[in-house]
Amino acid sequence: MPRKNSFATCLCSLIALACCGVALRAAPQPLDVMPAPSQVRTGAGRAALADGFVFTLSDPADARLILATGRFQARWNARSGLSHPGNAAPSALQVKVQTTSRAPEYPTGSEDESYELHVSAKGVILSAATDLGALHGLETLLQLPRRDGGSWSLQECDILDRPRFAFRGLLIDVARHWQPADVIRRNVDAMAVVKLNVLHLHLTDDQGFRIESRTHPELQTQGSDGHFYTQAEMADLIRYAALRGIRVVPEFDVPGHTTSWVVSHPELASLPGPYAIERWWGVFNPVLDPTKEATYALLADVLGEMAALFPDRMFHIGGDENNGVQWNANPVIQAFIREHGLHDNPGLHAYFNKRLNAILEKAGKRMVGWDEIANPQLPTDIVIDSWRGTEAIASSTALGFDCLRANGFYIDLCYPAASHYLADPVPDPSKLTQSQLSHILGGEATMWGEWVSPETIDSRIWPRTAAIAERLWSPASVTDVSDMYRRLATVSLRLDEAGALHLRYRDGMLRHLVGANLGFPGSESLRTVVDLLEPVKQYRRGTLQIWSNQLVPLIGLADATLPESDLARHFSEDVEAAVFAGTRADSAALASLRERLKAWNAAAADIDGIADVYPGVREAIVPAAGLRATAAAGIEALDALAAGRTLEPERAKAARAALDGASADSPSAVIVPLVPPVRLLVAAASAQDRRAALAPQAWQDLVRTLALPEKPPTHSKHYN
Amino acid sequence: MPRKNSFATCLCSLIALACCGVALRAAPQPLDVMPAPSQVRTGAGRAALADGFVFTLSDPADARLILATGRFQARWNARSGLSHPGNAAPSALQVKVQTTSRAPEYPTGSEDESYELHVSAKGVILSAATDLGALHGLETLLQLPRRDGGSWSLQECDILDRPRFAFRGLLIDVARHWQPADVIRRNVDAMAVVKLNVLHLHLTDDQGFRIESRTHPELQTQGSDGHFYTQAEMADLIRYAALRGIRVVPEFDVPGHTTSWVVSHPELASLPGPYAIERWWGVFNPVLDPTKEATYALLADVLGEMAALFPDRMFHIGGDENNGVQWNANPVIQAFIREHGLHDNPGLHAYFNKRLNAILEKAGKRMVGWDEIANPQLPTDIVIDSWRGTEAIASSTALGFDCLRANGFYIDLCYPAASHYLADPVPDPSKLTQSQLSHILGGEATMWGEWVSPETIDSRIWPRTAAIAERLWSPASVTDVSDMYRRLATVSLRLDEAGALHLRYRDGMLRHLVGANLGFPGSESLRTVVDLLEPVKQYRRGTLQIWSNQLVPLIGLADATLPESDLARHFSEDVEAAVFAGTRADSAALASLRERLKAWNAAAADIDGIADVYPGVREAIVPAAGLRATAAAGIEALDALAAGRTLEPERAKAARAALDGASADSPSAVIVPLVPPVRLLVAAASAQDRRAALAPQAWQDLVRTLALPEKPPTHSKHYN
Repeated sequence: MPRKNSFATCLCSLIALACCGVALRAAPQPLDVMPAPSQVRTGAGRAALADGFVFTLSDPADARLILATGRFQARWNARSGLSHPGNAAPSALQVKVQTTSRAPEYPTGSEDESYELHVSAKGVILSAATDLGALHGLETLLQLPRRDGGSWSLQECDILDRPRFAFRGLLIDVARHWQPADVIRRNVDAMAVVKLNVLHLHLTDDQGFRIESRTHPELQTQGSDGHFYTQAEMADLIRYAALRGIRVVPEFDVPGHTTSWVVSHPELASLPGPYAIERWWGVFNPVLDPTKEATYALLADVLGEMAALFPDRMFHIGGDENNGVQWNANPVIQAFIREHGLHDNPGLHAYFNKRLNAILEKAGKRMVGWDEIANPQLPTDIVIDSWRGTEAIASSTALGFDCLRANGFYIDLCYPAASHYLADPVPDPSKLTQSQLSHILGGEATMWGEWVSPETIDSRIWPRTAAIAERLWSPASVTDVSDMYRRLATVSLRLDEAGALHLRYRDGMLRHLVGANLGFPGSESLRTVVDLLEPVKQYRRGTLQIWSNQLVPLIGLADATLPESDLARHFSEDVEAAVFAGTRADSAALASLRERLKAWNAAAADIDGIADVYPGVREAIVPAAGLRATAAAGIEALDALAAGRTLEPERAKAARAALDGASADSPSAVIVPLVPPVRLLVAAASAQDRRAALAPQAWQDLVRTLALPEKPPTHSKHYN
Repeated sequence: MPRKNSFATCLCSLIALACCGVALRAAPQPLDVMPAPSQVRTGAGRAALADGFVFTLSDPADARLILATGRFQARWNARSGLSHPGNAAPSALQVKVQTTSRAPEYPTGSEDESYELHVSAKGVILSAATDLGALHGLETLLQLPRRDGGSWSLQECDILDRPRFAFRGLLIDVARHWQPADVIRRNVDAMAVVKLNVLHLHLTDDQGFRIESRTHPELQTQGSDGHFYTQAEMADLIRYAALRGIRVVPEFDVPGHTTSWVVSHPELASLPGPYAIERWWGVFNPVLDPTKEATYALLADVLGEMAALFPDRMFHIGGDENNGVQWNANPVIQAFIREHGLHDNPGLHAYFNKRLNAILEKAGKRMVGWDEIANPQLPTDIVIDSWRGTEAIASSTALGFDCLRANGFYIDLCYPAASHYLADPVPDPSKLTQSQLSHILGGEATMWGEWVSPETIDSRIWPRTAAIAERLWSPASVTDVSDMYRRLATVSLRLDEAGALHLRYRDGMLRHLVGANLGFPGSESLRTVVDLLEPVKQYRRGTLQIWSNQLVPLIGLADATLPESDLARHFSEDVEAAVFAGTRADSAALASLRERLKAWNAAAADIDGIADVYPGVREAIVPAAGLRATAAAGIEALDALAAGRTLEPERAKAARAALDGASADSPSAVIVPLVPPVRLLVAAASAQDRRAALAPQAWQDLVRTLALPEKPPTHSKHYN
């Protein structure tokens, strides 16, 4: 597996380096590359980029590499404004791409993805065992140029890089909200930027069956509202991903999460139908009947044709969240359990999975499923995709199953990038055996589909998933959160260049709110307020917007806000820096905080008037009021801090009450992320003995308490 | 032809209307529909839209209509925030769609596209002879809902509508700058919004051969830089367009504009090669040799396979701008002309076209070409696409050829929408015979590709092409420019909903300028300045940016500006209103103008500082200085007008000099569109006898002189 690759091949390069007199520098590496490479050594010189790049391939017939250099040139030219140098540009920077072999047309996950990149004033040498490694090297190279004044250059450097994990995935749920092929393609392009290599498509669920079956077309014609990929379209998509070094692993979630299947096959459900496509979110009762041979006949047909369509050996069968209601209520099923000595519903589930595994084995596939399928009765060749957490990983690897970590990477929860960044696929190495450790293949970010449309999905995936990509690619020791955020801001632009719409989607969402062109008086205030709000975390939106389901468009205030407000995060960082600066904070820092709050207060004050004209903005009235109250409390605390006086207890109490009010639930399902840093300001300003209160550990604890995201759900990924 | 349809079938509806007591109202019709329908009668009542639309189709198996209603629902739900009503919503507005026949899978241009739309509180009846007409009716229906406070409704109305012309096209040049299939698809969706029905793809030119040939793959492998549509991809695209009622007419431009062909076939050029893909813009020498049988053999192969790929009967062979250099220089060719009695190069061109026409006739195609192919020796069945102007239309129709008007609809010139809006395919009816008039099939907007990339092309097509679409669809009498602009602002949002990126592209372009995320101090000023500039008109950019060619990315200041600045247009309108208001303009109006200039001046003053930090913004320094000078001159004039005094002659002279300076060429290739209205202000403020000067006709003349766009090129669509 790639993560075990040694750097034997790199030694020669290091020796060569030493001879060339390039200075070796220790971490932290100064190149803004994301994911951070395994090893970087920088030299003092720079390679000028007056005329762009020219590539020479050691394997000039490798279509995957030729096309990749074409995309490289287009992205680079668009960023830099430099021309494509064409064939005749002696002043262009020469890039020699040396590969020793081509990976198979469809990557399998066992290829060597490592590469070496040597940049000097004389040119660039990119060498890799396979073209997949070379693709990664090209993405790194494309992150190296820096602009100084009007001219571009690259710092001299030697990079030795390889992935920590072989499986670095992104799950996209196309079942709950349909995502057309163009959405998938642009996100595949973005995945390649940050070296993710597996696209996991959650193709079926209660709310939709999203792929054409030729053996049973009734599945998609009755179960999809016409929203499904044709097989030809899917084959195209798989080729598109493979050209970018990305595998496609399909998921057909059975036996639960199958309402869309039993719309056309009610006879295969565990209780009589009829059934209709599910429009709501949660865990539902319909489940396939594992006691009927017809169930396996249908699965053999459908999974058989899908096994032929999807070249990857991994085949995900879901297996999660069967609530047992239908099985319990059906006496025939319970009798079957007794007669076959299966003990209980989990025993029946294991029986079902064994039958399923036989179908998949026959088709040459390796079964993957969520935690619930981990059962000692199944062959250890299957893979467990762990959404439940670190204990599930420990127990599954103890049973000898290979494991993926999804838990901690639930980007649909709208948590900050930092929370995902610090979740490691290897939860606590000291508690696992070497054998267990060797079973952890990697992880995947999960873009569940309840609250994303084709318009908003990019903004929910990017840029936060780049932090997860770094966790899966870079050495485990790379954990500096503030350095991650610094590089995340840059990689966000690189993702935009590659086609992701996470930055460009915003104006469209603001237009939804006002139903008009932007540029009206106050539109900048609306923009600012939206930038200062975030969607509620976890799955709370469903409890606040109880009217919303699959048929309700996602064009509200919550959809217009980003999962993590940069303005609020920078404010938080500056508050912490100011509060922890000493007994008396720097007055300029306090003034800067105050100025921001004043401007934001003024923007929030415009919302009522805007909402009078544009009814779609009414959703923002309550959050804007919360924002104003938060800003006012912050300004009062800052004034006290600046004057070196203690905030009076009754004023502090009033401020805390105002902040509680600003944190209250509202049907717009957004939060005011300025509340935690302002709580910290109020606490600092009202501390009687600031010197004692400012003992770093006490404050760090307070920050953690106040500012940490809400606790992730522990027992179910979908509320009932 | 559709434009000759009578409204016989509508009479019953009108009688029914009268019985129902719906009040009949005369034009101007108050519904913001674009293109304006032929006839509209509005009632006093309103149909409420509490719960969205539910469709019932008289032909429930018409896939084109089923898919269209699906897209309708998605766009409507996203705009309104109302849910898709699903199957069970008694309060939803019922829409009965009644069609009497299905148009063929691939529309031919001869189908009946008319429809009737009857909206009352009881529901909507949409009836049409074909599903193509019903598609148009759905687009009209989707433009009818109005929001009043929080609730949506439709005004009661009866619309009888049909196209004035059967050919309503958009040409996209994918040869000069490559446009991938997703660019074409989203623009096809936008075309359908404004009832355009022909996509003309300019597939080959000196700079690229953009479609896979299976008989001669060397054409695309050597002539495209790898940027071409596969035949499978093109077949998909044609189906995609056909499902939206849109034909696809391919253009293979021969015998000139063929450098990309002779890269792989130098033996077919009229002078010996070798040849390389052309990277520059203009009219070039390479031209196919019409004296060689091998030329016709290749054309028979390639056009033969393309005739099978493209189902439309019309087949465009270009035929423009052969400069004669190669033919003149080749004695064999000149001898051929003499031997065959062809007289001269135009005679040889006619000979070539006859041979070409024979190939196309055999394949069942109707030859279309630019003005240059009009020749009495050719059968009158061919169609002339007229880019040269009204005289060319007169002469070609006099020869008995059907004609299309492209001249006047050159959207690549970056002219205001109004200038295209007032160009009529029938230039002056009084100068044409009835027979000539019957030969005018319609027209097409031409998106030539020199200065558009996949990022910018939507902004160059939309929304201005909606004004052309109205010219081609609506009655000739619909010519109110200010009403057009009012509706254009709304239809622009409808185009965005349908997927066009003309509104969403802007932030990406600003990011190109700064190479960073937006939101930095001053980014709003940069946004404002960019919104107040326009690209230079005609093909002047090539003379100002002489270093630019196909290999240079289009990410500069000119690319970030829109062809028509809304801010500047509104300012111009307000200046004219204020100046023509009487001898002394309304002081509030003058104050509003002054306030705008002051704010814009302040924004422009920020540019130098921004450019210090972001070198990509340096391009804006000179235009921003021009903007400041313009604003200062305007403020001085406004102060004089407000005080009722005359601007001193030397001050007026200084102001005019400043405005001349602001109009000077700069390498950034943008103009300051505020200059003409400020010239008007200065003229008004410096007029000694304002009463006489304000005689409406004198001022209108002045406005015309000052504010009209530059004269379009008359002799060549591409500079040399």
